[in-house]
Amino acid sequence: MEETIFSELDIPSGKVNKFMALTNIRTYPQGGCFIWAGTTPSKIGLVQKGLFRYLYTDQAGNGFTKSFMPERNFISSYSAMVQKRPSYFSIEALEDSTVLEIKYENWLLLREGHRCWDRLLLGILEKGFMAKEKRERELLLLDAETRYRNFLLEYPALEKRVKQHLIASYLGIKPESLSRIRKNLHGIT
Amino acid sequence: MEETIFSELDIPSGKVNKFMALTNIRTYPQGGCFIWAGTTPSKIGLVQKGLFRYLYTDQAGNGFTKSFMPERNFISSYSAMVQKRPSYFSIEALEDSTVLEIKYENWLLLREGHRCWDRLLLGILEKGFMAKEKRERELLLLDAETRYRNFLLEYPALEKRVKQHLIASYLGIKPESLSRIRKNLHGIT
Repeated sequence: MEETIFSELDIPSGKVNKFMALTNIRTYPQGGCFIWAGTTPSKIGLVQKGLFRYLYTDQAGNGFTKSFMPERNFISSYSAMVQKRPSYFSIEALEDSTVLEIKYENWLLLREGHRCWDRLLLGILEKGFMAKEKRERELLLLDAETRYRNFLLEYPALEKRVKQHLIASYLGIKPESLSRIRKNLHGIT
Repeated sequence: MEETIFSELDIPSGKVNKFMALTNIRTYPQGGCFIWAGTTPSKIGLVQKGLFRYLYTDQAGNGFTKSFMPERNFISSYSAMVQKRPSYFSIEALEDSTVLEIKYENWLLLREGHRCWDRLLLGILEKGFMAKEKRERELLLLDAETRYRNFLLEYPALEKRVKQHLIASYLGIKPESLSRIRKNLHGIT
């Protein structure tokens, strides 16, 4: 799978071998964490199989789902890793998952070696930045039903893979509200 | 000023000349816009003097302040520019301002020429990404008073330069709530 992803991302195949030599493959059972909130992260992952979510927990123990990350996505607690401080959120496996992992220090070495890795990182950061810009706008401006419709368009495969209360948490609404919205939509369509 | 900024950002001085040759200086009166919502943006700016805000407006005409951008910040509607689609938000001058501007096509040419510009862009995107991550967390997890305290820590100079109702809009609260929080804080400290 990596070959395909990296060729789509304009990484020369000789460089992919260099990357692969610096990575490990690890599996995470459903409910396991790639990063725990409160620990200082030092690795980046590429999801080969499975599904993760980024999870905030407030002081009262309530969870908020920041993002869903299915296969072919890079996962990391990027700000915390770069700033060498504890992560504010966890990255939790929602399914049994397999991740290709690279240590941050090795990632920095790769980047020194060839500019294709800077370009790759730029692409990842651009994608992340755009996703956050979109999410901020949706949370500020759109009502819950429109946010749910957008979610279905953006992640058509996730509706079936993710439990409804987690989708509600991602949309920033109560499970009861999501349930009402889904009934309305099915009534219409 | 550019010399200082670029040397802090590890841009060789010879490269700064190349950048400057591709830029224009423009002034924006208070209330003028660097980017209008609904138009497709094609430029990046470096604020030399003054202050801007990123502004969403909903269908009912209510404004939401996404960010404040004082001098020494790069401003752009980045996702829209890269995706060549209309911007969802405006970038409005809150004070009479001066901006060093570069067209996106020239920026792409610069990046082809030397990797220092990729590194600069990485730095800007990293900073933007971290700011958005922080803002998302604060909006989800912190109460309004704590968000206001954080705002004062992060932008100590802006309290005096920005009208209170805009700070309230940035914090996602009503002006009356901000006014109550400020009274409480002054009572305590």
